[in-house]
Amino acid sequence: MHDVEGALRAIRRGTEEILVEAELIEKLKLGRPLRVKAGFDPTAPDLHLGHTVLINKLRVFQEMGHEVIFLIGDFTGMIGDPTGKSATRKPLTREQVIENARSYEEQIFKILDPAKTRVEFNSRWMNELDSGEMIKLASRYTVARMLERDDFSKRYGSQQPIAIHEFLYPLVQGYDSVVLEADVEIGGTDQKFNLLVGRELQRQYGQSQQVVMTVPILEGLDGVQKMSKSLGNYIGVSEPPNDMFGKLMSISDMLMWRYFDLLSFRTVEEVTRLKQQVEDGRNPRDVKFELGVEMVDRFHGAGAGLAARDAFVERFQKGQLPDEIETVKLSSQDENGIPLAVALKEAGLVASTSEAYRMIQQGGVRVDGERIDDRGLKLCMGASVIAQVGKRRIARLEIV
Amino acid sequence: MHDVEGALRAIRRGTEEILVEAELIEKLKLGRPLRVKAGFDPTAPDLHLGHTVLINKLRVFQEMGHEVIFLIGDFTGMIGDPTGKSATRKPLTREQVIENARSYEEQIFKILDPAKTRVEFNSRWMNELDSGEMIKLASRYTVARMLERDDFSKRYGSQQPIAIHEFLYPLVQGYDSVVLEADVEIGGTDQKFNLLVGRELQRQYGQSQQVVMTVPILEGLDGVQKMSKSLGNYIGVSEPPNDMFGKLMSISDMLMWRYFDLLSFRTVEEVTRLKQQVEDGRNPRDVKFELGVEMVDRFHGAGAGLAARDAFVERFQKGQLPDEIETVKLSSQDENGIPLAVALKEAGLVASTSEAYRMIQQGGVRVDGERIDDRGLKLCMGASVIAQVGKRRIARLEIV
Repeated sequence: MHDVEGALRAIRRGTEEILVEAELIEKLKLGRPLRVKAGFDPTAPDLHLGHTVLINKLRVFQEMGHEVIFLIGDFTGMIGDPTGKSATRKPLTREQVIENARSYEEQIFKILDPAKTRVEFNSRWMNELDSGEMIKLASRYTVARMLERDDFSKRYGSQQPIAIHEFLYPLVQGYDSVVLEADVEIGGTDQKFNLLVGRELQRQYGQSQQVVMTVPILEGLDGVQKMSKSLGNYIGVSEPPNDMFGKLMSISDMLMWRYFDLLSFRTVEEVTRLKQQVEDGRNPRDVKFELGVEMVDRFHGAGAGLAARDAFVERFQKGQLPDEIETVKLSSQDENGIPLAVALKEAGLVASTSEAYRMIQQGGVRVDGERIDDRGLKLCMGASVIAQVGKRRIARLEIV
Repeated sequence: MHDVEGALRAIRRGTEEILVEAELIEKLKLGRPLRVKAGFDPTAPDLHLGHTVLINKLRVFQEMGHEVIFLIGDFTGMIGDPTGKSATRKPLTREQVIENARSYEEQIFKILDPAKTRVEFNSRWMNELDSGEMIKLASRYTVARMLERDDFSKRYGSQQPIAIHEFLYPLVQGYDSVVLEADVEIGGTDQKFNLLVGRELQRQYGQSQQVVMTVPILEGLDGVQKMSKSLGNYIGVSEPPNDMFGKLMSISDMLMWRYFDLLSFRTVEEVTRLKQQVEDGRNPRDVKFELGVEMVDRFHGAGAGLAARDAFVERFQKGQLPDEIETVKLSSQDENGIPLAVALKEAGLVASTSEAYRMIQQGGVRVDGERIDDRGLKLCMGASVIAQVGKRRIARLEIV
């Protein structure tokens, strides 16, 4: 724990910003376990790899012997959206919160060590706070400074309403840091303002201020937009091994290195060596295999990665797919997806939907290597599959 | 109670604004006692005539059989100024609040009927509110609308800090109206925004909205600035009869009519008759006597007014003061006031302070008709006295 330089190197990797690094160094030198806090929304326990960037960073601290505080913001979750404008922010019941917390634990403990992770709910202290104390908390920050927050200033500038309680939520989040006496708080770059409120409140409460660390937002499978469930470009941490592996194989070589940086537990040195190998002529697909194996192992246990790789190779490589497969993006008008026959026609793999139906009937259509006999099959939004008609008509179909 | 026209006439008198008058008419037609709310700061129970403009209006409702709710905002008073920036807004203890409430009652029950007045403390319900409910309350109003309040928009515009809890106080005041199901709320013109917040919250809580009434700010003895203790131009409701009477005699004839409108319980018809009498040649001073007698009677009991008038006449008129007395304004550098000798010299009644001391020693100096023998006497800030040196050197000295 006293190798501060080594610790810093690991902490800095893939980190967007550290405020203030000099303070972090001082804290690392204390020689005691630091309290490293990260806050999570109690409503969405369905994690994807994008969320794990932050959790991986918590793991780095944990491996150095520090205490990770996984904070579930259930207090605000149980209030919901009091303006009633958002149907998705209905108040959660205590039972839902507990169930969601269990689901969180199931997912995060694939990355974090349960023995070194403290799971907290901020309702524990927030429910004790009366309205007078809430008012005092609100007195600790000014309207002008709150309006400096990016989304607030944009909404205020464009005359979109901001309800006053929205000004209280960053203060609640900051107060959590006061109660927990957090040494470090980690969040996405979009959380930077709120994390800094925690710093400010700790100062006002006479505490040593937490170091604020932001991690980047992970790009989704398309390599452009942020990984997100609603964009369909995500890999869920609970997805079956073959799906997870297959999706990882679909990313570009450039994105692969980004994923190595943000998702792999390989050391910086190991990743550098892999890059060198590719420069020296190694097939990038084989390196992508290594990433896929690591990820599947992480979420499905040791051995699951190799099995997924073998299944992938079995399905695709033994089928002697060409090295270059054209990708065709199809947009689905229907939220239930697009019928396979229609997709084949639109991608130009068949001349008409009738030909598609005939080919399916004859057993001449494969999707991801598997023969299709259901002529009503639909390809869902977000699907990315390799479709074959006969031997030679092949394309990757992406439903967007 | 069903003479709605007559009721309206009395309610409108000296009222600045009624929002919305049509709703008030509807409420008056209900035939049940209306709940008429007015809120008071728990820190300043030392009332002057300026405060009584509002209390008089409450009395008008009370005389019509409505229920007056005298609301003491002790919840916020017990929080004080949480930013700690204002030394004058220290948190009040429960004991202080109760003591202040008693002092309030002593003063307001000279105007209101105790049997028809409900005294409430908003801590009763606000202390029950937890932070979650406070957040929900805060969700009911937007930042933009709150920033429309005059003082907020000025401060925001000139980059003066507004602490976020200041946005919560108008909501607390509005919530009081919800809890009390107020039909009418009366306040000073400076309270209009807050009173309207109450209307809005009642709407959101599905209640019939309170009618908002504002009463004007009473001018002080100078006839220009608002009556205020700190400006020294006030008449306290607990001032001794002779002081109260003397101060009222010092106001201008124009201000006298304003005071008749806002302070006298005489009917509009009676006041009109008095005006006519003056136009017909009656000495305005005699009419001012009637105002003085009414006011002193109100705060010191029937008969006290005439006694004060007689004492006044005894002291001044029998001393054959000239009709026109020059007023000299002196500014006091020292908060303890200005030595009488210095004041006499600055007003030109003596040539030097040594002459002043000599005249005092010889018994030739009178203040408000009384011989002065203390050469160290000081005239306090806000004092307005008639000083005489010998028989002919006379001036009214106002210490500002």
